[in-house]
Amino acid sequence: MQERVREILSWYASDNPGTRSNIARLLNHGRLGGTGRLVILPVDQGFEHGPARSFAANPGGYDPRYHFDLALAAGCNAYAAPLGFIEAGAAEFAGEIPLILKLNNSDSLTGGSDPCPAITGSVDEALRLGCAAVGFTIYPASAARNEMFDQIRGITEEAKRKGLAVVVWSYPRGSGISKEGETAVDVVAYAAQIACQLGAHIVKVKPPTAHIEQGAAKKVYEKERIPVGTLAERVRHVVQSAFSGRRIVIFSGGEAKETSAIFDEVRAIRDGGGFGSIIGRNSFQRPKREAVEFLSQVMDIYAGKTK
Amino acid sequence: MQERVREILSWYASDNPGTRSNIARLLNHGRLGGTGRLVILPVDQGFEHGPARSFAANPGGYDPRYHFDLALAAGCNAYAAPLGFIEAGAAEFAGEIPLILKLNNSDSLTGGSDPCPAITGSVDEALRLGCAAVGFTIYPASAARNEMFDQIRGITEEAKRKGLAVVVWSYPRGSGISKEGETAVDVVAYAAQIACQLGAHIVKVKPPTAHIEQGAAKKVYEKERIPVGTLAERVRHVVQSAFSGRRIVIFSGGEAKETSAIFDEVRAIRDGGGFGSIIGRNSFQRPKREAVEFLSQVMDIYAGKTK
Amino acid sequence: MQERVREILSWYASDNPGTRSNIARLLNHGRLGGTGRLVILPVDQGFEHGPARSFAANPGGYDPRYHFDLALAAGCNAYAAPLGFIEAGAAEFAGEIPLILKLNNSDSLTGGSDPCPAITGSVDEALRLGCAAVGFTIYPASAARNEMFDQIRGITEEAKRKGLAVVVWSYPRGSGISKEGETAVDVVAYAAQIACQLGAHIVKVKPPTAHIEQGAAKKVYEKERIPVGTLAERVRHVVQSAFSGRRIVIFSGGEAKETSAIFDEVRAIRDGGGFGSIIGRNSFQRPKREAVEFLSQVMDIYAGKTK
Amino acid sequence: MQERVREILSWYASDNPGTRSNIARLLNHGRLGGTGRLVILPVDQGFEHGPARSFAANPGGYDPRYHFDLALAAGCNAYAAPLGFIEAGAAEFAGEIPLILKLNNSDSLTGGSDPCPAITGSVDEALRLGCAAVGFTIYPASAARNEMFDQIRGITEEAKRKGLAVVVWSYPRGSGISKEGETAVDVVAYAAQIACQLGAHIVKVKPPTAHIEQGAAKKVYEKERIPVGTLAERVRHVVQSAFSGRRIVIFSGGEAKETSAIFDEVRAIRDGGGFGSIIGRNSFQRPKREAVEFLSQVMDIYAGKTK
Amino acid sequence: MQERVREILSWYASDNPGTRSNIARLLNHGRLGGTGRLVILPVDQGFEHGPARSFAANPGGYDPRYHFDLALAAGCNAYAAPLGFIEAGAAEFAGEIPLILKLNNSDSLTGGSDPCPAITGSVDEALRLGCAAVGFTIYPASAARNEMFDQIRGITEEAKRKGLAVVVWSYPRGSGISKEGETAVDVVAYAAQIACQLGAHIVKVKPPTAHIEQGAAKKVYEKERIPVGTLAERVRHVVQSAFSGRRIVIFSGGEAKETSAIFDEVRAIRDGGGFGSIIGRNSFQRPKREAVEFLSQVMDIYAGKTK
Repeated sequence: MQERVREILSWYASDNPGTRSNIARLLNHGRLGGTGRLVILPVDQGFEHGPARSFAANPGGYDPRYHFDLALAAGCNAYAAPLGFIEAGAAEFAGEIPLILKLNNSDSLTGGSDPCPAITGSVDEALRLGCAAVGFTIYPASAARNEMFDQIRGITEEAKRKGLAVVVWSYPRGSGISKEGETAVDVVAYAAQIACQLGAHIVKVKPPTAHIEQGAAKKVYEKERIPVGTLAERVRHVVQSAFSGRRIVIFSGGEAKETSAIFDEVRAIRDGGGFGSIIGRNSFQRPKREAVEFLSQVMDIYAGKTK
Repeated sequence: MQERVREILSWYASDNPGTRSNIARLLNHGRLGGTGRLVILPVDQGFEHGPARSFAANPGGYDPRYHFDLALAAGCNAYAAPLGFIEAGAAEFAGEIPLILKLNNSDSLTGGSDPCPAITGSVDEALRLGCAAVGFTIYPASAARNEMFDQIRGITEEAKRKGLAVVVWSYPRGSGISKEGETAVDVVAYAAQIACQLGAHIVKVKPPTAHIEQGAAKKVYEKERIPVGTLAERVRHVVQSAFSGRRIVIFSGGEAKETSAIFDEVRAIRDGGGFGSIIGRNSFQRPKREAVEFLSQVMDIYAGKTK
Repeated sequence: MQERVREILSWYASDNPGTRSNIARLLNHGRLGGTGRLVILPVDQGFEHGPARSFAANPGGYDPRYHFDLALAAGCNAYAAPLGFIEAGAAEFAGEIPLILKLNNSDSLTGGSDPCPAITGSVDEALRLGCAAVGFTIYPASAARNEMFDQIRGITEEAKRKGLAVVVWSYPRGSGISKEGETAVDVVAYAAQIACQLGAHIVKVKPPTAHIEQGAAKKVYEKERIPVGTLAERVRHVVQSAFSGRRIVIFSGGEAKETSAIFDEVRAIRDGGGFGSIIGRNSFQRPKREAVEFLSQVMDIYAGKTK
Repeated sequence: MQERVREILSWYASDNPGTRSNIARLLNHGRLGGTGRLVILPVDQGFEHGPARSFAANPGGYDPRYHFDLALAAGCNAYAAPLGFIEAGAAEFAGEIPLILKLNNSDSLTGGSDPCPAITGSVDEALRLGCAAVGFTIYPASAARNEMFDQIRGITEEAKRKGLAVVVWSYPRGSGISKEGETAVDVVAYAAQIACQLGAHIVKVKPPTAHIEQGAAKKVYEKERIPVGTLAERVRHVVQSAFSGRRIVIFSGGEAKETSAIFDEVRAIRDGGGFGSIIGRNSFQRPKREAVEFLSQVMDIYAGKTK
Repeated sequence: MQERVREILSWYASDNPGTRSNIARLLNHGRLGGTGRLVILPVDQGFEHGPARSFAANPGGYDPRYHFDLALAAGCNAYAAPLGFIEAGAAEFAGEIPLILKLNNSDSLTGGSDPCPAITGSVDEALRLGCAAVGFTIYPASAARNEMFDQIRGITEEAKRKGLAVVVWSYPRGSGISKEGETAVDVVAYAAQIACQLGAHIVKVKPPTAHIEQGAAKKVYEKERIPVGTLAERVRHVVQSAFSGRRIVIFSGGEAKETSAIFDEVRAIRDGGGFGSIIGRNSFQRPKREAVEFLSQVMDIYAGKTK
């Protein structure tokens, strides 16, 4: 095993061998295997945004097998999706790529200012389907915080007992903060910290902006002159906020945008010490050949093969 | 076993043999057995609309045994009903026709804009009564979404562990959408996708109209020029939204209407790649002989024996 | 065993022998034993209305043993009461009369337009106390419907597994209907249907009036010319609504009133095919000798010994 | 064993020997042992009113051991307190006096018109600490009635299965009645009835006033000329409302007041057939020697040694 | 073992040997080992206030291992933190210092006047990680009181069964009291009493002010002339309110402030009979060498080595 993977596993010394083996599976698979970096393909947009908005641009994506194929072809570290999509390919692709079962999901047919996703899977379902990890979204700053935190608490305890890894999507949103605050650097750093304190092995956050949301935090950022001017600096601060870099932090790709802008973002994540990206719409909404090429380039940036 | 049934079963490769056997039972029973098409008789209107509104037009239907007889005589693939109706015939008709136990139900004595049916049965009750599947209604777009999704999540997990199939009635309704939106093509497609992601083996939706409800979806339908002009096209889109046709999608008959209109609708479902119909009031509110004749014609359309 | 009891038991063929034995115990005990008719003594008014309002008129009734004695002396089929009252006599009268443990109760110290009784007993308590059945009140048309239906669902499943019978008091009440609608014939018939669909073996409703509450129902009653002019006709319609008479439906005595009026009501229930009465206040608020005489006459009407 | 204790135990014939043994322990301990009367020392005021308001007047009472000593020195039948106070003496005083673990408690730091105490102990904790009984407060007339009734239902079932006795504090309070109504004779009698119907072995109520709260009850009290003019008459009515005297009913001492007034109250309870008193603040807020003397006099009144 | 530790353990005679061993571990570790005094390092501010506000002043603290090191270097009795922080060092520092797993936590991204922390850990997680105790925060005076009290009730019962000690942070806050009331001497004493009654082994409160919040309490403080003029007097009153000093009561350090002010506070706690301090921000926000020096001086004050 690569030295870097051994080093990362040493951060999870309180976990049992089953869980650490599954973290290793995630780190050792694909083009970035062994580098300590990860690029994960997530496809929960069918649930979150609806099928046409997700797959009409590239209709192959209506078929659940398409995404297994794409993740394999591009050499992603793992593929993450809700129960139905995982179930529809888990048997056919058994053992070919690490799977992450998303255990909660929202849809776009109901709204509300304080989000709380529906539970849509379980740790036992993840075991049944041969997954390496479970995924869970929390919305810090939502008034439904306690409900979500208590859910992830129980899931984390069970997953660790049963040897799975836990990936937490930590997206601040809700009546406790402003819209701009959802990606403010202080809030994103805080969201990373919360996910780590809740016991996540891998944390996914959004790339932070230079905005600082909370007054009490602003004073500290100014007093301590915490550098947050560039994205790389902000990524570095978020990674530091995740137990001084001793937890794996990856960043979402966000809305579809220009390819060059994404590459710039990935370089900043890399330079700031981020562990990788989780890129959905920017991958599966392109024609497959183009998507594989695109993901390869992202991985090459992380691997340091390209500037 | 027919080749088509084997093909359909291959889509459910992550399920255990018990569940796949029960899906096969549904597909192999009755006049359409082996064709991959289904016509199911559902009788939950006594609970949902009250006894007189449901059965006074054809009073034989007050007797629970009537519907077992009707489903058998017409050669339906299965009979679906709430606990009481199933219980009142399960012993007498044991082994004669696949049964689907509806596990939740609403009534018309209370209203409210965000529906959430009452739980009225369980997976263990379905096993006790010899059923092949459980049925469950979800109302995407209801504010009670999380409660319903969490219920079906638990039921699905238990049913799959115990070897039953899961049929989900996915009817968008609630404060998240307009009345017209309940059958809008984008919303119906979304409802099918959600049911599939929640792990349903068979999804029941309403025939969609050409209306598009959600602004963000409308842009995509227009940009990608998704054809939704005819019912057959809309059915095709909904089936595609159900994992590119790798989940069984059937359509409800809706309110009582002219027979020829129903046949037209069935032809469109067939031509759009739909897997069949679930027809209640239009069946059991006719005299039995007429109902058997009517259902036979529906099945002949699906079987391709008639245009 | 009487042929009529065998016939009735055949309707419950999906139940296990333990439950059917207990239904038989109810049908075979007392003066009406073997006739297929039942008169049950219920005493939950101490809980529901308070002790003085219930027992001051005939103070012997403060003593829980009084009601066991009365039910035995009058030859009732069964005695129904909440936990405390059953517990206070179950040992002394063990094996002398079938008992029905009421598992939920309301009191008159709190109000509210959408009733939901408190749970006050359990299936295991009924077993411990040697009861033949459990009783449960639902209020269709209450906004708390889902809570009550889910409770009875669990109780019914457990009771059937453990060999007890289930008696459901189905009293429409709540914000979904008007005060007059609580006894409207369409609503009472609907309430009977719901209780049967929820799996009740015996359903108790109130004698219906000729009022029709729901607009959608009214159209059907008029179109199909369902006869509801006399109480006997309405009883017949309610019994038909209970699975075409294949579930035992009994009627409450209601508020204290003139004896001759009660006898008229009983004759109408009998003539309409109702299975019997459950008479509380009109029994235990009279002096015992008078109550026994009164109940004997009610039973003679049901037995056809008197017109 | 005294004949009177045997008689009382005969009322609890449906309970198992373990529970009846513990009722006997309560009845046979202390100065009133064997008389069928009880005086219990309850000390939950530290939780309910705060430490200084409870113990500053007699600071020995801050120490949990003080109350064990006091109950023993005075010859009380039992000592009742919340988890912390029982735990802090249960080992040292093991086997010396019957203990009652209070399983729910309120505090004075939060208010609200519809009280619902917090659960603060369990049946298993009572077993661990060697208690003879559990105690529980219900507030009939509170909108939180169903929650409390369901809690006591579960506790009662478990306690009876595990051989403990159940003492219910039944204090009407909440939006369903007026402040004056909390001690109205109809309401107190109703509260006693409810506690008995919920399965309590011992019921504690407040001494009732001559006020009648509920209109429907008032008519009955007047029509039946129920005597409620003197406290003894009202106590007799309350005891009758507790299953015609076949459940143990005791009365609270209430707020601190003049000693002679308490003795008068005790005489009225005795003359009305009440089974005893539960006296907290009037005991432990006096110097110990004085408290022992005071409690001895109360017991002598109950024992009939003094007028 | 030191005599003082034996004496303290005797107060917990109702606990099993496992729990008493863990209380002993807390009392016997570090510079104050055996003295009956404790200084505990708590680090939950990353969760409660966010990472930058907590650790930017002394960035070593971003690393979870830093706090284990600091607690060890300074000779603290124990280290307390949420799941993530404990997990990130429990394996590396196994057996080196007693650990307290905080089982609930709030964050600063949502507000509300009636706080209720999220559950973030469990007793089984504490066992898995080798902890000696669990920690839990209650907010008496919050409208969410019942929820928190019921949570700690279950946790306490489980922890005692499984041999762990229970530390309760009792911080009055919520709509039941004023802001000033949160540290009022009557309220703090009440908070200590509640925590003890709920079964806590160790109670943490804030140093009380001379303000008296509740009218009913004020009368008693004045009538009984309870001395609350100096902090030492108030500490003495709070310790007395914790079962007359038979429960361990420690005091929080509160907001960062001048070192000399802290030393004064510690002297007052010591002189009032307090058992020690729990000092977070004032420790880990200083450079490590300075923090060790500072904590040593605090401990010397408690040990009586310095005035």
